[in-house]
Amino acid sequence: MVALRRDIHAHPELAYEERRTSALIAERLRAWGFEVDVGLAKTGVVGSLTSGNGPTVGLRADMDALPISEAGEFDHRSRFDGKMHACGHDGHVAMLLGAARYLAATRDFQGTVRCIFQPAEEAAGGAKVMLDEGLFDRLPVDAVFGMHNWPGLAVGRFALCPGPIMASLDCFDIRIEGHGTHGALPHHGIDPIAVAAAVIQALQTIVSRNVDPRRAAVISVTKIHAGNAHNVIPDHAMLGGGIRCFDPPLRTYLKTRVEEVVAGVTAGLGARGRVSFIAGFPAVINDVRSSELAARVARELVGDEGVDTATEPVLGSEDFSYMLERKPGCFLFIGNGAGPASCTIHNPGYDFNDEILPLGASFWVRLAQAFLQQRSA
Amino acid sequence: MVALRRDIHAHPELAYEERRTSALIAERLRAWGFEVDVGLAKTGVVGSLTSGNGPTVGLRADMDALPISEAGEFDHRSRFDGKMHACGHDGHVAMLLGAARYLAATRDFQGTVRCIFQPAEEAAGGAKVMLDEGLFDRLPVDAVFGMHNWPGLAVGRFALCPGPIMASLDCFDIRIEGHGTHGALPHHGIDPIAVAAAVIQALQTIVSRNVDPRRAAVISVTKIHAGNAHNVIPDHAMLGGGIRCFDPPLRTYLKTRVEEVVAGVTAGLGARGRVSFIAGFPAVINDVRSSELAARVARELVGDEGVDTATEPVLGSEDFSYMLERKPGCFLFIGNGAGPASCTIHNPGYDFNDEILPLGASFWVRLAQAFLQQRSA
Amino acid sequence: MVALRRDIHAHPELAYEERRTSALIAERLRAWGFEVDVGLAKTGVVGSLTSGNGPTVGLRADMDALPISEAGEFDHRSRFDGKMHACGHDGHVAMLLGAARYLAATRDFQGTVRCIFQPAEEAAGGAKVMLDEGLFDRLPVDAVFGMHNWPGLAVGRFALCPGPIMASLDCFDIRIEGHGTHGALPHHGIDPIAVAAAVIQALQTIVSRNVDPRRAAVISVTKIHAGNAHNVIPDHAMLGGGIRCFDPPLRTYLKTRVEEVVAGVTAGLGARGRVSFIAGFPAVINDVRSSELAARVARELVGDEGVDTATEPVLGSEDFSYMLERKPGCFLFIGNGAGPASCTIHNPGYDFNDEILPLGASFWVRLAQAFLQQRSA
Amino acid sequence: MVALRRDIHAHPELAYEERRTSALIAERLRAWGFEVDVGLAKTGVVGSLTSGNGPTVGLRADMDALPISEAGEFDHRSRFDGKMHACGHDGHVAMLLGAARYLAATRDFQGTVRCIFQPAEEAAGGAKVMLDEGLFDRLPVDAVFGMHNWPGLAVGRFALCPGPIMASLDCFDIRIEGHGTHGALPHHGIDPIAVAAAVIQALQTIVSRNVDPRRAAVISVTKIHAGNAHNVIPDHAMLGGGIRCFDPPLRTYLKTRVEEVVAGVTAGLGARGRVSFIAGFPAVINDVRSSELAARVARELVGDEGVDTATEPVLGSEDFSYMLERKPGCFLFIGNGAGPASCTIHNPGYDFNDEILPLGASFWVRLAQAFLQQRSA
Repeated sequence: MVALRRDIHAHPELAYEERRTSALIAERLRAWGFEVDVGLAKTGVVGSLTSGNGPTVGLRADMDALPISEAGEFDHRSRFDGKMHACGHDGHVAMLLGAARYLAATRDFQGTVRCIFQPAEEAAGGAKVMLDEGLFDRLPVDAVFGMHNWPGLAVGRFALCPGPIMASLDCFDIRIEGHGTHGALPHHGIDPIAVAAAVIQALQTIVSRNVDPRRAAVISVTKIHAGNAHNVIPDHAMLGGGIRCFDPPLRTYLKTRVEEVVAGVTAGLGARGRVSFIAGFPAVINDVRSSELAARVARELVGDEGVDTATEPVLGSEDFSYMLERKPGCFLFIGNGAGPASCTIHNPGYDFNDEILPLGASFWVRLAQAFLQQRSA
Repeated sequence: MVALRRDIHAHPELAYEERRTSALIAERLRAWGFEVDVGLAKTGVVGSLTSGNGPTVGLRADMDALPISEAGEFDHRSRFDGKMHACGHDGHVAMLLGAARYLAATRDFQGTVRCIFQPAEEAAGGAKVMLDEGLFDRLPVDAVFGMHNWPGLAVGRFALCPGPIMASLDCFDIRIEGHGTHGALPHHGIDPIAVAAAVIQALQTIVSRNVDPRRAAVISVTKIHAGNAHNVIPDHAMLGGGIRCFDPPLRTYLKTRVEEVVAGVTAGLGARGRVSFIAGFPAVINDVRSSELAARVARELVGDEGVDTATEPVLGSEDFSYMLERKPGCFLFIGNGAGPASCTIHNPGYDFNDEILPLGASFWVRLAQAFLQQRSA
Repeated sequence: MVALRRDIHAHPELAYEERRTSALIAERLRAWGFEVDVGLAKTGVVGSLTSGNGPTVGLRADMDALPISEAGEFDHRSRFDGKMHACGHDGHVAMLLGAARYLAATRDFQGTVRCIFQPAEEAAGGAKVMLDEGLFDRLPVDAVFGMHNWPGLAVGRFALCPGPIMASLDCFDIRIEGHGTHGALPHHGIDPIAVAAAVIQALQTIVSRNVDPRRAAVISVTKIHAGNAHNVIPDHAMLGGGIRCFDPPLRTYLKTRVEEVVAGVTAGLGARGRVSFIAGFPAVINDVRSSELAARVARELVGDEGVDTATEPVLGSEDFSYMLERKPGCFLFIGNGAGPASCTIHNPGYDFNDEILPLGASFWVRLAQAFLQQRSA
Repeated sequence: MVALRRDIHAHPELAYEERRTSALIAERLRAWGFEVDVGLAKTGVVGSLTSGNGPTVGLRADMDALPISEAGEFDHRSRFDGKMHACGHDGHVAMLLGAARYLAATRDFQGTVRCIFQPAEEAAGGAKVMLDEGLFDRLPVDAVFGMHNWPGLAVGRFALCPGPIMASLDCFDIRIEGHGTHGALPHHGIDPIAVAAAVIQALQTIVSRNVDPRRAAVISVTKIHAGNAHNVIPDHAMLGGGIRCFDPPLRTYLKTRVEEVVAGVTAGLGARGRVSFIAGFPAVINDVRSSELAARVARELVGDEGVDTATEPVLGSEDFSYMLERKPGCFLFIGNGAGPASCTIHNPGYDFNDEILPLGASFWVRLAQAFLQQRSA
């Protein structure tokens, strides 16, 4: 598994371009006797293995790398400048392949295991594309599980919680249409920058005044661009950012409030504002029974102390949420080790911790066995 | 004149309550042979005197005192706590009565002089009421002049300008309707204070962004009241303030912009806002020819150096503006002396400067003579 | 108990004025054989009863009414206009007295029970005064419990949670010192209302940007007062409000941030701002073991379904928090019935639900017995 | 003159690159007998011509083009994409050369005429560089005059005013240093965009509250750039803009206020702000006597009606102001014709109006003669 993980790490591929990774996975799965489906979401691979009668469980790993230049100097560092496995999807693939090999070799389960290798988790929504292209229609499952390595959580530990574990995300663009004019003649135009400032300040009140203080909600305006000269008031300002929360009705409310604030404030200041929601993920919501199963399996592996079953949810997002919208299941974290800050995900110095490969693979194996046993019984 | 001025000073009367002052004026005018009209705007007095054939000139003085407790300790200080002549209207009355006496005694003019003693200049718009009750219909004039003492301008000096010399004023109230709730539960209501803050900030952009920088404009929110407890978000917030400028179309624009800003920002933040314009004065706009006449007369009295004919207009307001909307004329300032800060108008320590009484009365006499001569010729 | 509760309801007494209530309580306790301590925090009463050897448990009820005029028309309505038991402290007293009577009659426990009747829970911090005057020094307890009736929670139900169950509250006043001037001459002063608007908007960013979105935090500016006239920019603006959260370090941080925002923004706008923290309560934080005990006792009384042991904490505050800062213990809610909105606490139409008196008293009895048993064992 | 103007128009050269234009000018001046100085501010040319004894007058024309792609389709359109004479400096050169030729041919004046051809008027401050390199030290003048074509003012008209005629300009950059973080974790950083919004709103209050409403002042934030991603709160925000006014002490005050607002608001919100003033021009301030002379000369050419001697000052800026800081003089406008909007300066469709070349040249000739005559007398 280590060699495999490092090989994938050295050959990172961005969203929907995971051709080498995908081919490697498919080849291995076929060699071990899996029935292999390729082509979902371009590079998606699903390996299915049946042993006796029983239900079907889906185990999902994501495959894509990030457009970041690797800072690490080790042997298996990325061979491609500007691309790296900075989120550990290389490890996710390796762990699931390790489990697949073991399950194929032992066939010690009753039912069907589907190993789902998904492209384009990073921002582009590969999970949704696989589903839209028929993943669960053609290759049905009774439940689906996902796992992410977690820097900051010690090696040998797992963390999960029932209910929301990761937030929904709605990325927005806001175009504020003013009317350009010379910087000396503000009254001949509508200054979109002054309007944008009022909009941004008003947006703060959504979280501070409109949301139940006990509900997590984030509205971040993360970019703003307007104007090119010191003496020209520009025509418009472009803002962008994201909305995050754990609660689907709150998600709808926050999006509506952003639209209302933008519409009202821009109108009051003589401009026009348009909000475009350009991408969005639902929250990752674990069902209670699947969470209990995952917790039980984890505890068998690392003991009660090693499993946090009430971990605080994370405001990041993950497109595995789309799978959990369709099927019961659970998404959990496996400790990647508590290292220095440079080891957080999406950081140029990050690397997946090979030490946890056997534990991750064992978890997948035991989870599949336990799920199928439980459901078969 | 000094005794008279001090007698009036000692007996200040508020807007529309100038009964003693009014009676005193009417008695004198009648004694000197003026035809006297009383009752316009409750306490208004107009004395008319005709000598030969000719046009008619109106000379106006205001009579009312202010609800301020006098700080001065001199003999003629106010006998009534909470009322004082803090704007020098006592002196305005005395100067015009002095001129009336002289004109009646000499009859050295061709036409009719009307001395208009107006109540309620301070905020309440006595000039408008007199006009609405028929002042210029029943007692027509060809032109009308007004004069205000001016602390900070040296004794022996006059200041005026053609065009706007004092600003329009529109007082507004803004009611911001939110929805009250417990201070711990902002999401159960609409916080009108957070909305008011956004409105006040947005209102700043009218002057900073929407008005030609070369045009004077003031929008002051001068009061805000909301809430009574530290743990209750109130239902609504009440704001009040005033809009000032010199230009009638700009005046209309500013009022509209305030309404638009309030409507848009409150809507964006989920509240409702209502702007009420509760009082307003037009700008005091001098016509060119009347200004030239007043300047000529003033220069005859104090020499070229003593008359500033291009004084910078003042952002305060004056209801004499209503008279100038109907008739050509001029409003000017007579120096009350350049004293310490305590001597500014509307200050508890202010007093009219008796030293200028003869000059003011002479100005009225010469202005009436010159106007009637000029027009008769 | 019903007669007693209604008698107290009919004779509401405000904070530190609970003389009749206090006397009535002391008299009963003495009659039943309690050792009675009076005078802590003026009107506080503590009745202590020992039976055999064992630890000591404190049971606390609050006694004060609110300055609200009662809207209810029933027989036991308040006899004093402007005062009423709008928070059900009448019921709290009655339930604890009911328990005291039973415990005195049966003496079925090992150790000491202290029934703590506290004045001035509403805003004035009677609990803190009792402690400062030596409550737990002179009358020590091993743990202390409190209970509040809860409209909206069905009769027959209890709700609690380990950890924070009610928020800390810090009431603040903010004085923004500008410099008064005429409304027409903003440049001669510093407009404290424009500054206040900027401060209020900037304060929103503390919750929206500075606080972990998963941590509840509320900063409500609930009052603002400035200015009296439409044409005078006032000297200063007075703001007031409250800060709430569940986490002590966060509490400190929020207070610091409010001070920093006020200092920075007022300085930037040429004014000065001073924040005064005029009152504050810590969060009510239940310890895990006491919470488990309270939950077990409640379940014995109403079954598993009747007890919510993971209720969502409430952003309101309660000065029982001071007692829990000193001793382990638990504060919990007893259902007052799920009625219409008019029945919420601090509402003129509210009344304590007599139906729950026996359940409440039984809870106190069983809790005392269970605590002393558990600790004695 | 027309052929010359069109030749220069067809060969536009940007600031400090006016080599062809400069060479052409120098060659002509030498041919006509001027003593020619080259090299000031790289491409500056000064031609001096003396006739008899007398004082020295400077006449200034600017030479540089703008980085704008010409939209016009006429024969003399710019031969270089991305450069054009969109401000009419081609015409300014042609008019002054026309005058130079006439003055050289007739020698009908007493004293010295210096024709100053200045590079880099557009933003880069060529006037200041010429002065810094010794212009008035080596080539002294008693007074200096400048003239700009003015679209919107009819052909055959001149406009000027004593005192300020164009505004000072101070271009600023503001760097707001926050602390970057993931968009889901605002509390781990300092959001520079939220801070920028507060700063921009606070900056509005300088014009709306701190400046005498009768003084023109503009503070325009004309650009803002921060952030590149929808899920990353950036480290810092960059703002830019300009401050304009007519009054030197106000200019200093406005710059100080911008710095104070930025310092205070950023500090209050936990960030840091740095204001850099990257370029600045003083106001163009005409002295009274030079203005009267220019007005007199203009009236001789086009009659009283054709000369507006009290034109409203313009909020644009002009580096001729540096010359007027050193020497008395006057800057005035010559009508370029009142055409459609597309003909305003700095517009891709603009062209200098050849019709006014003779009038402009005549004005220079007569002004030189009149100045030297007046001063010689």
